Amino acid sequence: MALVAGAENQRLAEPENGLEALNALVGDDLKSVNRLIVKHMDSPVALIPQLAGHIIAAGGKRLRPMLTLATAQLCGYRGERHLALAACVEFIHTATLLHDDVVDDSDLRRGLSTANAVWGNKASVLVGDFLFSRAFQLMVADGSLKVLDVLSNASAVIAEGEVQQLITSNNCETSQQEYLEVISAKTAALFAAASRIGAVVAERPEADEAALDYYGRNFGIAFQLVDDVLDYSALQTTLGKTIGDDFREGKITLPVVLAISRGSSEERSFWRRCLEDMEQGPEDLDHAVALMDKHGALTESMERARHYGRIAREALDVFPDSEVKTALTNVIGFCIERAY
Amino acid sequence: MALVAGAENQRLAEPENGLEALNALVGDDLKSVNRLIVKHMDSPVALIPQLAGHIIAAGGKRLRPMLTLATAQLCGYRGERHLALAACVEFIHTATLLHDDVVDDSDLRRGLSTANAVWGNKASVLVGDFLFSRAFQLMVADGSLKVLDVLSNASAVIAEGEVQQLITSNNCETSQQEYLEVISAKTAALFAAASRIGAVVAERPEADEAALDYYGRNFGIAFQLVDDVLDYSALQTTLGKTIGDDFREGKITLPVVLAISRGSSEERSFWRRCLEDMEQGPEDLDHAVALMDKHGALTESMERARHYGRIAREALDVFPDSEVKTALTNVIGFCIERAY
Repeated sequence: MALVAGAENQRLAEPENGLEALNALVGDDLKSVNRLIVKHMDSPVALIPQLAGHIIAAGGKRLRPMLTLATAQLCGYRGERHLALAACVEFIHTATLLHDDVVDDSDLRRGLSTANAVWGNKASVLVGDFLFSRAFQLMVADGSLKVLDVLSNASAVIAEGEVQQLITSNNCETSQQEYLEVISAKTAALFAAASRIGAVVAERPEADEAALDYYGRNFGIAFQLVDDVLDYSALQTTLGKTIGDDFREGKITLPVVLAISRGSSEERSFWRRCLEDMEQGPEDLDHAVALMDKHGALTESMERARHYGRIAREALDVFPDSEVKTALTNVIGFCIERAY
Repeated sequence: MALVAGAENQRLAEPENGLEALNALVGDDLKSVNRLIVKHMDSPVALIPQLAGHIIAAGGKRLRPMLTLATAQLCGYRGERHLALAACVEFIHTATLLHDDVVDDSDLRRGLSTANAVWGNKASVLVGDFLFSRAFQLMVADGSLKVLDVLSNASAVIAEGEVQQLITSNNCETSQQEYLEVISAKTAALFAAASRIGAVVAERPEADEAALDYYGRNFGIAFQLVDDVLDYSALQTTLGKTIGDDFREGKITLPVVLAISRGSSEERSFWRRCLEDMEQGPEDLDHAVALMDKHGALTESMERARHYGRIAREALDVFPDSEVKTALTNVIGFCIERAY
């Protein structure tokens, strides 16, 4: 603990290859998962595989299914159930993205135009519904009520978080606590469920399930904090995403909450005009970033991310050392430090 | 069969009190279901019960959950599982309505303004997701993989049907067969699942499950056919819905398919202008109805509805006579003849 506390302001170790190492360890499984994804997103209604393929093939990091694969490996699981369940996790994630696209009007996601922009709102909502239903069909085929319990609970919590986010949008009075509730639900719940499933399929004791749930939950919070920082970072453009999406939508993320709470009354008027009244001029995004810099809002948000990253890392302490444990640890650092 | 054929053009018996009789038989159960609905749509995120309550409390006929309650009774079921499962069915139906509102821009549903119009697209999508997830949580709590199988399959088919409908929209080449596929999926699949569940909870043999599935499926097709006729009927206004919604959206329903296939090339140009190019003037809806009358498109659609209604009624033949069997029979006639 002293060592961890001493490392308070340092980066987590070995972030550079955090994702590659995890990828190498679960790579074969991930290929199987990708095959299952392609197989199960098929439908005689051709628009479904077209649209779903557009967003799923665009790829992303497959971080959530990788968590299921890696935690199953960590728990010594030797069967094949984790493959279809990892596909379920990706389907639920993709359904959420599709519905979020409808919601957010974002122009770019994963470097490609959103499904929404190409096929329209209607199709995004309905294909999302299909993927969500398909995920439940796959879980039913797996046959474990415990898995169904974990993922149906996560799905309900995600939806609650998305609605809560809608309420906090355009509200400059949003507190840090409310922000944390939103990201715990909309992002961390699926990270937690994806990680817990590894222990469930391996039939490990509840304590191991809980440890992996805690790992995923705190990792997910760290991940979303970094995502919210990246939306105000020039680095975002190198990831193929636009900068300032959250600002243009009036989304209240931690950098904004901190900048508002540390700002002058004149600054608060600026934030209210931009994010509540949604009156934004061409210079306003730059000014917003300048205010965040002035108040250390982005740096502080990154510190919070590292804090949750450390908690996630410590959650793995109950597991004996192994290559996959190291990879699950280092991928946290990778995801956090991608912001710099 | 001769008797049925002879009754080809007659109304089904006793339509007047079809719904009331069913309501009387399952009324106590339905009250329990309504309590479960209110209880389980609750969430600390206040917008969820507000929005869900708006659409669920608006009521509707609760036809789908009533099918689950009545078929359970028909199968001699004596437990309480059917109550939560009937609530699941209503949640899935409501989620579909909410997502359909996003899709359809309809101004009125069940006599109230749509949730979409009041709270916006975003909230409708996300609260729909919540209700859908909540339905799966309730099924998991019930603990039957068979029920989960039935309803997850139905959900995937519904989503496929909604996407298929999107593709046939604004396409005057849509065939009767394609139309039938759409309504079999988007509407009849949930009627079938809701009815099958009664046999599942009562642990009746597969043949009884299949009979009730067939009952629900054909009833659902008849129901949707009538719904599509009503959209061009003045009677619609007395049901608190606007007339011509489908026309304004360019939705291709059976009355349109029939009018197009029986129409002159000049008439086909009219349909293409209105439903493909979406260029509609103030007189066009009246002209559309006049063309449908001229070609008997609405009458023929009603005949088809009665045809499927008869098939649904015959599916109940394997069950011994009882009050609830009579009610399940007569409710078909009620739903069909509400159009006149």
